[in-house]
Amino acid sequence: MASSLNIFSNVNGFGCTKPSVGSQQRRRMVVVKAETINPEIRKTEEKVVDSVVVTELSKNITPYCRCWRSGTFPLCDGSHMKHNKATGDNVGPLLLKKQ
Amino acid sequence: MASSLNIFSNVNGFGCTKPSVGSQQRRRMVVVKAETINPEIRKTEEKVVDSVVVTELSKNITPYCRCWRSGTFPLCDGSHMKHNKATGDNVGPLLLKKQ
Repeated sequence: MASSLNIFSNVNGFGCTKPSVGSQQRRRMVVVKAETINPEIRKTEEKVVDSVVVTELSKNITPYCRCWRSGTFPLCDGSHMKHNKATGDNVGPLLLKKQ
Repeated sequence: MASSLNIFSNVNGFGCTKPSVGSQQRRRMVVVKAETINPEIRKTEEKVVDSVVVTELSKNITPYCRCWRSGTFPLCDGSHMKHNKATGDNVGPLLLKKQ
């Protein structure tokens, strides 16, 4: 699964200096930015909000995506299983039940 | 916000060698594991699935969390706003409407 993680690495920090008394060895700095939950869905929208008028549900049970990986978003297509397996996560859908 | 990002860094790779013809400078390797979406909610459960019997909804509009940061999960408490601001993400809730 493609990761949207952004890593800003000080790539100029590779240079090594000969250690000497009184000087500190240069170290590279790696700054990791907190990852987005939604890598791809409707990224032109400032906030992805969906509405369901519950009287219009046709099936007895309709699963809605909460992993932001579904190809049928906002509906669940089971993509959370691949995500959970790849990351050790435990996310799952919201089930809307008519009764 | 606390990040659950796992970074496995070759911390033994700091050593510098004097560059010489025919040898490669040692470089540290940083491997970043794909991040979980859910850092804290019901982590003892293999998969977090919630059900809503839509006939039991009391309010005209009930927002359900899709950012996995809500203190009232599975309901939305607006925590996606903090997450979006911190990460540049654009996630939002699922709104269940009675009509």
